[in-house]
Amino acid sequence: MSSENPGRPGRSTLSKGRMEGFSDGVFGFASTLLVLDLAIRPPGTAWQQVLNGWPSYVAYLVSFMTIGVAWLGHTRMTDRLESVDPILLRLNLLLLFVVVLLPFPTRLASAALHDSSGERVFVTMYGITLLCVWLLGFGMDAYSRREGLYATKAAVDDVGVVGGELRRWPIIVGYVISILIGLIQPTVAVVLYLGIAVYMVIPLREILKPRRRPRATAP
Amino acid sequence: MSSENPGRPGRSTLSKGRMEGFSDGVFGFASTLLVLDLAIRPPGTAWQQVLNGWPSYVAYLVSFMTIGVAWLGHTRMTDRLESVDPILLRLNLLLLFVVVLLPFPTRLASAALHDSSGERVFVTMYGITLLCVWLLGFGMDAYSRREGLYATKAAVDDVGVVGGELRRWPIIVGYVISILIGLIQPTVAVVLYLGIAVYMVIPLREILKPRRRPRATAP
Amino acid sequence: MSSENPGRPGRSTLSKGRMEGFSDGVFGFASTLLVLDLAIRPPGTAWQQVLNGWPSYVAYLVSFMTIGVAWLGHTRMTDRLESVDPILLRLNLLLLFVVVLLPFPTRLASAALHDSSGERVFVTMYGITLLCVWLLGFGMDAYSRREGLYATKAAVDDVGVVGGELRRWPIIVGYVISILIGLIQPTVAVVLYLGIAVYMVIPLREILKPRRRPRATAP
Amino acid sequence: MSSENPGRPGRSTLSKGRMEGFSDGVFGFASTLLVLDLAIRPPGTAWQQVLNGWPSYVAYLVSFMTIGVAWLGHTRMTDRLESVDPILLRLNLLLLFVVVLLPFPTRLASAALHDSSGERVFVTMYGITLLCVWLLGFGMDAYSRREGLYATKAAVDDVGVVGGELRRWPIIVGYVISILIGLIQPTVAVVLYLGIAVYMVIPLREILKPRRRPRATAP
Repeated sequence: MSSENPGRPGRSTLSKGRMEGFSDGVFGFASTLLVLDLAIRPPGTAWQQVLNGWPSYVAYLVSFMTIGVAWLGHTRMTDRLESVDPILLRLNLLLLFVVVLLPFPTRLASAALHDSSGERVFVTMYGITLLCVWLLGFGMDAYSRREGLYATKAAVDDVGVVGGELRRWPIIVGYVISILIGLIQPTVAVVLYLGIAVYMVIPLREILKPRRRPRATAP
Repeated sequence: MSSENPGRPGRSTLSKGRMEGFSDGVFGFASTLLVLDLAIRPPGTAWQQVLNGWPSYVAYLVSFMTIGVAWLGHTRMTDRLESVDPILLRLNLLLLFVVVLLPFPTRLASAALHDSSGERVFVTMYGITLLCVWLLGFGMDAYSRREGLYATKAAVDDVGVVGGELRRWPIIVGYVISILIGLIQPTVAVVLYLGIAVYMVIPLREILKPRRRPRATAP
Repeated sequence: MSSENPGRPGRSTLSKGRMEGFSDGVFGFASTLLVLDLAIRPPGTAWQQVLNGWPSYVAYLVSFMTIGVAWLGHTRMTDRLESVDPILLRLNLLLLFVVVLLPFPTRLASAALHDSSGERVFVTMYGITLLCVWLLGFGMDAYSRREGLYATKAAVDDVGVVGGELRRWPIIVGYVISILIGLIQPTVAVVLYLGIAVYMVIPLREILKPRRRPRATAP
Repeated sequence: MSSENPGRPGRSTLSKGRMEGFSDGVFGFASTLLVLDLAIRPPGTAWQQVLNGWPSYVAYLVSFMTIGVAWLGHTRMTDRLESVDPILLRLNLLLLFVVVLLPFPTRLASAALHDSSGERVFVTMYGITLLCVWLLGFGMDAYSRREGLYATKAAVDDVGVVGGELRRWPIIVGYVISILIGLIQPTVAVVLYLGIAVYMVIPLREILKPRRRPRATAP
């Protein structure tokens, strides 16, 4: 964890290692806690109860995928980091704060989809929380660029291009539109959140393009 | 975490380190959350209540062992990985998704064994989730082989043989048969799931064969 | 994790690596568990229910930020550690014990702010727990200095100055005053706890001072 | 994590790194989950409710300390490990299984101390679970010695002496006596479990003896 940059001053590199360890833990816990809110919905036969629980499954899927993609993006970003400064560590804490918060609006949105009470309020809160995860992630990325914390200029460009995790504006615009739609049709908004997460998790470039990652074993 | 391949390009190796860290967290957390659903069953004397709780103990045992063996297999696989690509990271997320999901059908199956209501539906869901853990694990292994992500050919063969974690077809066929039996006799299916987990966790080859792992301390 | 001091005897360094790993897990998990106690407050419209839940949000914010800042301080401290001895490991366990305990008084204080029953007792317990996190952190720092466990004298001075996490007396005095105020006005005390956490998390020196951290990429 | 033995074959060392990571996670989670069962006991004034909750605090304290000391012992043991074999990995899983299980008997014993119903059964189950943690830990240690997995003979002797975590027979006899006493006086047994944990966590030798650990910074 701490040895990737052996020639650099040890302090920042080590902080990076622990930032990664702590973040991995929090991302992992937050995604696992979501399962506690999965539940079937009596009454009815067993199948009906399982099927009636669909809002909690959809909300679970959206939140798990969002946390998963955020973790992928976080990994990409910290991979490029050469050093970590106190402000970045705090931005990271803020990001983790929102990630940890996510099970709460997920639960509310899931309950709202079932009961249709307060649907709009809870689904909007959910959408705003999802958006905040991305805004903070983009903020960390922007800060790291501005402060020159990334390893090299080339690597920075790479972050913006390869894999396309950081397709910034489409993601932000997509969430804003979905949140606005949710003010009228909350269920549609949740489906759109799912769509965005699916769009982000699928590595389109990786699948469509010819292989461009050299294999370490290839000559 | 990131220094095992010092001569290789750092990026992929680091991603591997974080993939391991995140996965360890999720495996560990999912296995720990299972304990929240352990409960004794009133009414009766203390002993009767403890004994009446058996379905939750059996389900806990099956799920813990399945997660444990899946973690062992995951460790074996990532040990051999020389590099990680975006698609493998996503397959890994999908595997973790199912692992994290496991406490939910575990809870349903455990409740169903007690109440005999909807037993078949819940035990079948449970079996399918267990099977998915293995299918995704095998999928990751197959993908890594095809894409040449493993360190060397020799190591790949080794994965298939030593320890026998990847006894692919017996496991798949075993689960399919157990799931089908569960449509008629749910309790028998859960016992079979337990049997498969026990079969997988016991390192038969290690116990039966003469020692073949050289000791680092031996001359 | 274990390679930052390659020239030193391996044993203590490794213990340090595991101390960090275990601590990261516990800090991360404790901060995530807090979300389980977030809840909206019926009755009323959806907005009213959300707004009525404010005590749980404030308590969540205070506890998350306190754990976050404690983690930052813990990172700073272990970064400087050159070796770990059995007593420091136990002091660390004691610190983690209080961190893990934190969700319990957080829950009590949050409920008390809502119901006004036993407000003083629970808010005081909460404040004392928060104070104990810092006292134990300072204790570990003092022990490490006295026993010469830090890397160099220069580094030790650095801990006390840069970033200002260890502004010892202002923090202790701040908590004691807040706890005493809480005996009369519990709600005010919680706001003060929040103020202390905000004061600690904001890296004032980093923001106000000119940059003094050399970039690894700069010539 | 993986670089402590750079000159040795990579495979086993890496497995050790992940065994440590997974174990750290599980130890950390299990100790944190205990807090979910902390509760005050209505009815009465706030102070009375807090004081009435004492059985859950004592049980929490015993379990947290036992997990903490087990983690310390686990750290000591894996520090000495030079290689890991499949059987040790499985013994480790078994140990983690019991550690993860611990919150369940803790909850039962805590409830039993309050209600005096089924006290003997639950406190006995609790004691047996605590004993199993140690038996499995000792089993792993014995297996590692027999199979020559430890780094050197000297180091093995060291495990048995320094710090005294592995004072095998006093611990086993202590638990057996406490469990037997618990069949008559359950509350006394819980106090004895606490006593054993306190006895184990306090590094008597470290405190009483003159310093014998050379400082890395000392000439």
